[in-house]
Amino acid sequence: MSTVFASVSVSLDGFVAGPDAGPRNPLGDGGSKMHRWVFDLEAWRERQGVESGERIRDNEIVKEEFDRAGAYVMGRRMFDEGEVAWADPPPFRAPVFVLTHNSREPWGRKGGTTFEFVTDGPVSAVEQAREAADGKDVRVSGGAAAVRQRLEAGLLDELEVHIAPVVLGAGTRLFDGPLAGGSRLEPDRVVDSPAVTHVRYRVLR
Amino acid sequence: MSTVFASVSVSLDGFVAGPDAGPRNPLGDGGSKMHRWVFDLEAWRERQGVESGERIRDNEIVKEEFDRAGAYVMGRRMFDEGEVAWADPPPFRAPVFVLTHNSREPWGRKGGTTFEFVTDGPVSAVEQAREAADGKDVRVSGGAAAVRQRLEAGLLDELEVHIAPVVLGAGTRLFDGPLAGGSRLEPDRVVDSPAVTHVRYRVLR
Repeated sequence: MSTVFASVSVSLDGFVAGPDAGPRNPLGDGGSKMHRWVFDLEAWRERQGVESGERIRDNEIVKEEFDRAGAYVMGRRMFDEGEVAWADPPPFRAPVFVLTHNSREPWGRKGGTTFEFVTDGPVSAVEQAREAADGKDVRVSGGAAAVRQRLEAGLLDELEVHIAPVVLGAGTRLFDGPLAGGSRLEPDRVVDSPAVTHVRYRVLR
Repeated sequence: MSTVFASVSVSLDGFVAGPDAGPRNPLGDGGSKMHRWVFDLEAWRERQGVESGERIRDNEIVKEEFDRAGAYVMGRRMFDEGEVAWADPPPFRAPVFVLTHNSREPWGRKGGTTFEFVTDGPVSAVEQAREAADGKDVRVSGGAAAVRQRLEAGLLDELEVHIAPVVLGAGTRLFDGPLAGGSRLEPDRVVDSPAVTHVRYRVLR
């Protein structure tokens, strides 16, 4: 059975993006601070079409996340914000099920990424992604609200947070109130580096 | 030279205490969730005058924090909230320098704890604590505002956060805005257990 996982970079004070995030500013003001650890890694750069990069421990984490994901579920906000930024070929190389209220034809991109637009809700999106993943895992991508809602709906098996050693002070929080739905988290694996602390939680229901 | 360190239990969403913290409710509503990992540990229980406790990996962290602290600097709020709760002998067994605006005679307690009330500011409190620590380290205790202010003032060399796998949703945050003063954090040591993730940051100035 596929594992449904999410993986999010956060600041030490819990922000996933800085203030004023939007299509022209997908990480928000100062938000690149949470993501800086990833930009020079080989596994990340290879997905951006850039050859050569660092092969440090953090790289194994990023490579693992890409390798295991056979399909993605994405919130509309992240799609809207990323759509402009993701040049061809986009980094996913797999079907991406975008949750939206507006029906739209599938959008095939170069390199194996196809955006499919799902209008009948997250449970259906996760089911469709499971099927498309064909035995691999399903990654729930952001935004923060999308990850939180899948977690609250009991659709998430694993949540990995990459805690960057920065205090951002303002922006979009991963958690912005009590967690509905009664899911609990249990630390499952911790990998540390000088740049970031990777904590993977198992979701218990 | 003594290291000045702080050590704080936080929820995954960054809270150090739940809502309505006060003298009769020092951890706030639900705040014990962030501290539960510590209550059964031998090193903690021994300081509360209770014999026997768990000697798991988390215990070594707590023992280390007690052993290295030759003196404490404490905010007035934590003192006010703890004063009622700390039975004789209090767990510190060392001089505790309490920052306050109201001068008060030193208060010697059983077991080696003496509360000294400092009215001339945090720099003086840290200096006095260094001297009193006699080669051991100085621990900056909470509340959150006290730790944050010492960090912003460049008085802290190390910050250890014990990240409990809970989403609290409301209460007192360790960080509640941008960090003044330009200090940066660098992960220095990570120790994990099934109950909590201990991340120690070096403070770079």
